[in-house]
Amino acid sequence: MADAPLFEQLGLIGCGLMGGSFALALKRAGLVRRVVGYSKSPSTTERARQMGVIDVEAPSALLAVSGADIVLIAVPVAATEATFKAIRHLVTPEMLIMDVGSTKRDVVDAARSVLREQVGSFVPAHPIAGREVAGVEHADPDLYLGKPVILTPIERTRTAQLQRAAAVWTAIGCQVSKMSPDAHDAAFAAVSHLPHVLAFALVNGIAAQPQGQEFLSLAGPGFRDFTRIAASDPKVWRDILMTNRTELLAQSQAFRDALQAFEQAIARGDADALERLIEQASTLRSRWRMSAGKPHL
Amino acid sequence: MADAPLFEQLGLIGCGLMGGSFALALKRAGLVRRVVGYSKSPSTTERARQMGVIDVEAPSALLAVSGADIVLIAVPVAATEATFKAIRHLVTPEMLIMDVGSTKRDVVDAARSVLREQVGSFVPAHPIAGREVAGVEHADPDLYLGKPVILTPIERTRTAQLQRAAAVWTAIGCQVSKMSPDAHDAAFAAVSHLPHVLAFALVNGIAAQPQGQEFLSLAGPGFRDFTRIAASDPKVWRDILMTNRTELLAQSQAFRDALQAFEQAIARGDADALERLIEQASTLRSRWRMSAGKPHL
Repeated sequence: MADAPLFEQLGLIGCGLMGGSFALALKRAGLVRRVVGYSKSPSTTERARQMGVIDVEAPSALLAVSGADIVLIAVPVAATEATFKAIRHLVTPEMLIMDVGSTKRDVVDAARSVLREQVGSFVPAHPIAGREVAGVEHADPDLYLGKPVILTPIERTRTAQLQRAAAVWTAIGCQVSKMSPDAHDAAFAAVSHLPHVLAFALVNGIAAQPQGQEFLSLAGPGFRDFTRIAASDPKVWRDILMTNRTELLAQSQAFRDALQAFEQAIARGDADALERLIEQASTLRSRWRMSAGKPHL
Repeated sequence: MADAPLFEQLGLIGCGLMGGSFALALKRAGLVRRVVGYSKSPSTTERARQMGVIDVEAPSALLAVSGADIVLIAVPVAATEATFKAIRHLVTPEMLIMDVGSTKRDVVDAARSVLREQVGSFVPAHPIAGREVAGVEHADPDLYLGKPVILTPIERTRTAQLQRAAAVWTAIGCQVSKMSPDAHDAAFAAVSHLPHVLAFALVNGIAAQPQGQEFLSLAGPGFRDFTRIAASDPKVWRDILMTNRTELLAQSQAFRDALQAFEQAIARGDADALERLIEQASTLRSRWRMSAGKPHL
């Protein structure tokens, strides 16, 4: 696989943790000859070149794309549409363009409206990988190793691009699966975005009470684990929650219904019904094992 | 402290993990001369004696109390009132009686109505300690070491008993604090019981959807930590939630209000308001550190 590079030139837009790690992984695997990088902050771009994450600094997103046969857009989700606009004049039918965003409906909509007839070059991608820390200093060729990557092609996505996208993620050690953008967003609203909102709301709901600080001082390991995600970065999560708001609000309603079933059993003193509800959750959760994205290949 | 025993005889009612560990800790610290134990299941009582957790098997709760100057009731919360009834005829004004239940209002109510004029001998206690596993086989003299214990005395609790209760938990390495039964139950509804219900409801709410299993298969480390407590024992949590239902439903309402603030900001597209809400939770959670019960000494 690594004897001949899959690609001549990677145009990397966003030289942070996610983008920089992708560049390093491709280089190490011998999958690309040259990486041309651009970041909004010139000092980041320079740092990426000094670290050998990229080979050439580009002064704009457009120039990072010029001459590339593979492009990775690794910018905050809110900046994806502006990036499409910045590069659209140099997108070709042969180019493979991917993103790494954690929501997909919005990215697909932006790609359709901005890239238009070239939308088939774009393969939306969501690698389930990350770190507590950000920035090119933490770029790591192993970041994606063994991690799931979900591709969310649309009808107009070109088959050749989709196959090359799957090949490149597989070649750097990922387990690739495919879903529709809507199913992806519903799934992540349910298992990631909503739990963040619930953890945020629990903390705020306690803090709003006169004895809230006293209550928090008594919290133990269950609270610690349950609210770990409540310490997440506000700007990052503001963007994710806003971007996926339709699916998120639908999941929040499904959750409220499930919560109400508990409240009603408790309020009417129905211990048997309550035990059945707990039993259902406990059995499901005990059987659940974190997958590496295998079920959707 | 350990030169002379604090107590002549511990009457242990419930020789499981919590009770057995208390007996072992007292013995090791030289705080008691003799332990007389009773469990509902005779094989448990026998096992406890064979393991040296208790010295003498009692054929009933009443006979375990006979001659004791300290009594620990370490039975499921739902069985506490029946235990008071079983022992009340041998409770004396000099005796120190404690429980280990994770709710306190109900225990205090039961103590008042059953023990009547002897209610002053009872010091309600909630040691914040436990294991994933139950049973006397797992009894461990270190179970309580360094753990918080909350005592929830009422007006009629005798000062002498309260002081001896604080002394014995302190002597086995606990950090003792005091709260009213109502404040205790509100605090644990907020930081423990409600999070359990939310984790149960999240799992059930996802499972109720046609694509629920697919969603669950995509869940990652955030979901894993958030729902860890959803795997808890159904009968134990049925009893805890039912017992503390007034405070729990009040906390659930406070949570719904906090959740609604998020939903409204998201629904109206108010990114600034959403960011402020997340910022509040994130700052609080980042600063929070698990205490060892120090704030309420």
